[in-house]
Amino acid sequence: MEQLVARLGLGVCDDGFISADDLGVNRGDGCFDATLVRVEGGKASADFVDVHLERLANSARLLDMDPIPADGWRELTAEALDAWASRGGAEAVCKYIHTRGQETVPAGPLGFITITELSAKRIAARESATAVTLSAGRRADALNDAPWLLGGAKTLSYGTNMAYVREAHRRGATDPVLVTTDGFVLEGPQSGILVLKDGLLFTTPVEATGILDSITVRHAIEGWERLGRPVAHELYTPEELFTADAVWLASSVRGVTPMVQLEGRDLPQDREVTEELRALVRP
Amino acid sequence: MEQLVARLGLGVCDDGFISADDLGVNRGDGCFDATLVRVEGGKASADFVDVHLERLANSARLLDMDPIPADGWRELTAEALDAWASRGGAEAVCKYIHTRGQETVPAGPLGFITITELSAKRIAARESATAVTLSAGRRADALNDAPWLLGGAKTLSYGTNMAYVREAHRRGATDPVLVTTDGFVLEGPQSGILVLKDGLLFTTPVEATGILDSITVRHAIEGWERLGRPVAHELYTPEELFTADAVWLASSVRGVTPMVQLEGRDLPQDREVTEELRALVRP
Repeated sequence: MEQLVARLGLGVCDDGFISADDLGVNRGDGCFDATLVRVEGGKASADFVDVHLERLANSARLLDMDPIPADGWRELTAEALDAWASRGGAEAVCKYIHTRGQETVPAGPLGFITITELSAKRIAARESATAVTLSAGRRADALNDAPWLLGGAKTLSYGTNMAYVREAHRRGATDPVLVTTDGFVLEGPQSGILVLKDGLLFTTPVEATGILDSITVRHAIEGWERLGRPVAHELYTPEELFTADAVWLASSVRGVTPMVQLEGRDLPQDREVTEELRALVRP
Repeated sequence: MEQLVARLGLGVCDDGFISADDLGVNRGDGCFDATLVRVEGGKASADFVDVHLERLANSARLLDMDPIPADGWRELTAEALDAWASRGGAEAVCKYIHTRGQETVPAGPLGFITITELSAKRIAARESATAVTLSAGRRADALNDAPWLLGGAKTLSYGTNMAYVREAHRRGATDPVLVTTDGFVLEGPQSGILVLKDGLLFTTPVEATGILDSITVRHAIEGWERLGRPVAHELYTPEELFTADAVWLASSVRGVTPMVQLEGRDLPQDREVTEELRALVRP
């Protein structure tokens, strides 16, 4: 099987409950979050559910929506994971979607989960990334004091994120790296970025730039720090990636993926640290 | 009745055909367009359908999607308008929605229409607008040579557009006016802007800024020019609005709406020209 749908208030259910005037569809007005589903010994589990639900609630707040209580999501997750395992589901992505609900009928917000089997392509994409830089069309500080630009929110308005990916593919790369008009690296449209240089593990600061607070990046940085090693949140340029000791894309579903090329030029790799980081971000 | 739904291939139909994994929902990955439905003498008509379908097709192209042929849309529109009139529907907005379709099942794109009665609030909003400026977080030229930022496309990723409106309301205004970080007026998140100064009717240039090509603005400018009066597409600052002879928001559904206040300061009005412009943009 490929996919399972569960709706708050209904549990695992048939598809077809989204109205044509749902603001999630008409306006991309809502938020989502996603995490990895592992299946082992006939049981399915989802990584860091509480952390993802916390980020989902924060995205909702940034959109001036009341967060959906975590308890309801947790119950629905448990039911959906049981159903996924009993139907023989494989490794998958669990997506939480919260829309503002219908435009014409004030029925309240809509919350649902999809569990979708990872395609072979998505699994293969974990091995390595080849990247190109693309303009994010804004300065690093453009979202400061402008909460209406929705910095830090993982919204359903992901159209530009997908367009970056298509452009990267058009240029023969697997992944785009977003660069500000003042020359700094932000993030990937579906991942954070980790850079290693002389033992220092660093990443783009979240607050100062309005990028998404990547849970995988956070776990990697926290884990590295726990090992007594230096970490930093600082702005850096694409040029610095060429002189780094290693660079990774990090996301909940894809994990820690070595960036092996940027703008067609090979980047150094560190297989040992890749495995260390992968261990650090695992539940 | 409040709303009617019609789907390409099905005609006027029951709601509930949008899948949980439709990319329009999950990613705001698709485009839309909207026009006004008038009901007169028991017949419903939609304004400038072909022009809106042309812009919808252009939005699709900008998203690397094959446009849905206009013939199908036109047929569906006729059927939906007939149904709307026969059910006693009033003045309404006809929205065309084209999503990239489902993520997991390659069923092809989804196209549907909603016809939704205009609320009393939306009708009242035609009378006048009070505006505040909000940062668009980018320079006027930021979208040039960066098609992945989707300038000019009316996409379903409208979350920021809605956030601008909420922020304007929070500030006690009816409408936001987007201003670039280099100080130029772009547009409203759901309307274009027209400015009159010494007989010159001007508006923000579309190509140079990546704003949406407002059909109502275009008709107003073309009509003004046909009358032998001067027009311009040029960048201007918010300060210029205070010294203008009159300013309007323009959109297909709302029409030509005088902006009577900006940042809490009164703007001059010209009722005669308002009526002239309204006549120019009418089919």
